[in-house]
Amino acid sequence: MTLLHYRRPEESDHIRVVEAIPVWWGMPPDAAPTGLLPRLFFQHFADTSTLVEDESRRLAAFLIGFRSASRPQTAYIHFVGVAPELRRQGVARDLYERFFAMMRQQGCTRVEAITGPINRRSQSFHRGLGFTLGGDTEVDGVLAYIDYDGPGEHRVTFSRSL
Amino acid sequence: MTLLHYRRPEESDHIRVVEAIPVWWGMPPDAAPTGLLPRLFFQHFADTSTLVEDESRRLAAFLIGFRSASRPQTAYIHFVGVAPELRRQGVARDLYERFFAMMRQQGCTRVEAITGPINRRSQSFHRGLGFTLGGDTEVDGVLAYIDYDGPGEHRVTFSRSL
Repeated sequence: MTLLHYRRPEESDHIRVVEAIPVWWGMPPDAAPTGLLPRLFFQHFADTSTLVEDESRRLAAFLIGFRSASRPQTAYIHFVGVAPELRRQGVARDLYERFFAMMRQQGCTRVEAITGPINRRSQSFHRGLGFTLGGDTEVDGVLAYIDYDGPGEHRVTFSRSL
Repeated sequence: MTLLHYRRPEESDHIRVVEAIPVWWGMPPDAAPTGLLPRLFFQHFADTSTLVEDESRRLAAFLIGFRSASRPQTAYIHFVGVAPELRRQGVARDLYERFFAMMRQQGCTRVEAITGPINRRSQSFHRGLGFTLGGDTEVDGVLAYIDYDGPGEHRVTFSRSL
C-alpha cells in the first residue's frame, strides 16, 4: 500500500505535471493535451488545486480546479490525472471528494467538468460520481456538444450538484 | 471613425472569438493558438473580460483577464486581440486601462501577462504601457524563460504595478 501525501501545488510543480501527462496518458508528447494546462493554473488557482506525491516524492496524481469568478456558485474541475500504477485505488474519487467539500464550504452548489467524446473512462468515472452527462449530437458513439471548445473540439459536459 | 461598443462577453461569444484569432493573427487555423482560449474563460471569467463590437455588431476586439484566486493582489491578462483594421487606434490600450481600473478597484496592486519570444509587437506594446519584461535566456533575439508553459513553450513575462 502506497502512502500518499496531498498538498497544494506550487508554481514550480507545473513542469512535472505537464511532463507527466503524455507518459500517464500513453501518448506521444506532441499529441498530449498539455496546452490545456498552462502555468497560469499553478499561479492563480493553486489554493483550490491538489497535488499528490508518493513516499518517494514522485508525482502520483493531481487535480486542477477553481471556483468560477463569474458564477460564484459553480466550481470547475479543469484537469485531473492519476499515475497509471495508482489507478483503480480510489485516488481520483478522493481528489474529487476533497474538492467537493472545499467548494461546498466556499458556498458552491454545483460542480462542472468536461471531456472529449472518445474519453470513455472519464465519462464512466463521472457518471459513477453522480455527474449528469451533457451533449446533443452523437460523436464517436456518445452525445457531445459540437465545436464546444472551438472548431473540431467537441466535448461531453459533466454537471452535478454539491 | 468607428463607434465601438464595449460589453462583458457571453458564453455564446466564445466561438466568434476563437474563429477570429487565426484570421486576425494571419495564421492557418491549425497554427493559431486557439487552444489557449477554451470556453471556460467565457464561462468563469466573463465579469473581468471585455468584448468590443463595431456599429454593425462585428467583433472588433477582446480582452480576457481575471483576478488571481491564489494571489488576490495580482491581476492576469490572458488573451487580447484587436481586428487588423482597428489597430493603431488605441483600442488595446483602452482595453488595458479599463482592466487596470477595474482590478485596482478590486484591490489588485500588480498586473501580469506573457507572450512568446517572437511576438515583438506584444513586447513593444507592453513596454509602452510600463510593463517590465522578464526572461533569463536569449530566445529568438529576446530574453525569455525556457519551457515556461511546458516543453518548447518559451515565454517573455510582463509585470507592472497598478
